[in-house]
Amino acid sequence: MTTNFYAPPSSFRSDRIVLPEEEARHACSVLRAQSGDEMTVVDGEGGWHRVEIDHAAPEQVVGTVVETRQDVGEPAVDVTVGMGLLTKRSRFETFVEKAVELGVRRIVPLQTRHAEPSSIRYERLTSVMRAAMKQCRRSRLPELTKPQAPEALLTDTTAPVRVLCEAIPEAAPLPEVLEGGSEAAEVLALVGPEGGFSDAEIATAIDEGCAPATLGGRRLRAETAGIAVVHSVLMHGGAPS
Amino acid sequence: MTTNFYAPPSSFRSDRIVLPEEEARHACSVLRAQSGDEMTVVDGEGGWHRVEIDHAAPEQVVGTVVETRQDVGEPAVDVTVGMGLLTKRSRFETFVEKAVELGVRRIVPLQTRHAEPSSIRYERLTSVMRAAMKQCRRSRLPELTKPQAPEALLTDTTAPVRVLCEAIPEAAPLPEVLEGGSEAAEVLALVGPEGGFSDAEIATAIDEGCAPATLGGRRLRAETAGIAVVHSVLMHGGAPS
Repeated sequence: MTTNFYAPPSSFRSDRIVLPEEEARHACSVLRAQSGDEMTVVDGEGGWHRVEIDHAAPEQVVGTVVETRQDVGEPAVDVTVGMGLLTKRSRFETFVEKAVELGVRRIVPLQTRHAEPSSIRYERLTSVMRAAMKQCRRSRLPELTKPQAPEALLTDTTAPVRVLCEAIPEAAPLPEVLEGGSEAAEVLALVGPEGGFSDAEIATAIDEGCAPATLGGRRLRAETAGIAVVHSVLMHGGAPS
Repeated sequence: MTTNFYAPPSSFRSDRIVLPEEEARHACSVLRAQSGDEMTVVDGEGGWHRVEIDHAAPEQVVGTVVETRQDVGEPAVDVTVGMGLLTKRSRFETFVEKAVELGVRRIVPLQTRHAEPSSIRYERLTSVMRAAMKQCRRSRLPELTKPQAPEALLTDTTAPVRVLCEAIPEAAPLPEVLEGGSEAAEVLALVGPEGGFSDAEIATAIDEGCAPATLGGRRLRAETAGIAVVHSVLMHGGAPS
C-alpha cells in the first residue's frame, strides 16, 4: 500500500506520526491499512514521508517515518493566479481543483469591478485542495488568500513575468508572451470574472508590467481560462517540471 | 444586441429564420429581444449568421439573415479526444464542457479495460455542448460519438499525429511530441479512465502510431488530462487558431 495521506506538521514528533482522525478512518475502512504496511504521508508544506505503520485502527493510525524527502511533486516555477470571483461557486471550485492538480502555488481571489458579489467557502475549498494535492501526488498545499483588489496584488508581487489573460487587441498568444520569460522562477497570471476586467483595471495591470495574452481563438469561461493558463505556464513556460 | 443563438439548419428557409422555442423564450424573456434588433445565430454545422429580427415574442422569434459566414470561431486543427469513461458523470461533463470551449472537434467515449461501468447521458451532454458552443462563440457543434474500444478508434482514424496521454517511462513531454507534427491538420489524443490504460491497450496504441506523452510533473485526474491536452494541441501544437 503506497497511497498518499495528509498530516499537518503538528502530527509529527521526531520520527513518529499520528494520522489525523479523518485520514485514519479512510486508511482503515477504505484502504484496509494494517500494521507493517507502508504508506506515504505529505504534510502540505513540502514534506514527503515514507511511513511504516506500527498500529492501525479506524480511530488511530500510528507509524514510524523511514524516509523523508522535500518538495516531491512540486513544480520548479512558482505560479500565482489572481482569479476574478465568479457568480457560481461550483465554477470557482472547479478552477481551484484543477489549478492545484496542474501545479499552482497560490490562488488570489480578485475583487474586480465587474465581478458579481460572491463569497468564498474557505473550508470547503481547503478540503478540495487537500484532496487534489493527494490525488496528484504533490507535497505542498497551495495557498488560497483572502480576496484582494488586482491593484493590491500587483503592488505586492515580485513575479518578473506577469500575464493578463484578456483578449484585448494588443494581446499576443500566450506562448509568445511566455517565451520571453522562460527562465523565470515566478509567474503571475490575472484572470478576470465573467464580465472581464474593466478598462481601468486593464490599464493598471499593463502599467504594472502585465503582458496581455490570448488563450486561443475562442472566448473561454473564466475558470477555463484559469485552468488553461496554469497548464500553459507549467508545461511550456518555465522549467520542464 | 449581438448574442449568439443556436438554430439547426432546418430552422432556415432561404434568408428567413425561425428560432427554436427554447432560444426564442431566452431571447425575449432574458435578453429582451425586439424587432429591429440584430442577433447572431449559429447552426452547429459551421454556419454563422447575422440576423435582423422581424418579429419577437416569447413563443416565436422570426428574422432575416443579412450576413452569413462559415466556420466562425472554429480552429484550423481537427482535434479528436478518445476519453475513458469515468465513474463520476459530472467529471465527464466537466471535460466535455471545457473541451468544447477550447476547440475539440470530436469526443469519443472509450470503453477500456480499467473503466468502471458507466453510462453517457447524451441528451444532457448535448445541451452542455450547445451551451459551451454559444458561450465560446463557435459555430460548429462538436461530435459526441457512441462509446468505442480504443482499438476501433485507432483503426478508423486518419489523424497523422496521435498522442497517448499516459505517463509511462518512455513518454516524452507533450510539447516535444507535438513539435514534430506542427503542420498536422488532424490530431488524435487518447486519455485513459481513472485506472489508466491496460498494458495491452498501451501496446496497441503504440503499435498504431501513438506517441506516449506526459502532461507535466503531477498525476492528473482523467478529465484534467483531457482538458489540458486539448488546450496544448490547439495553443501550441498546430496552427495558431
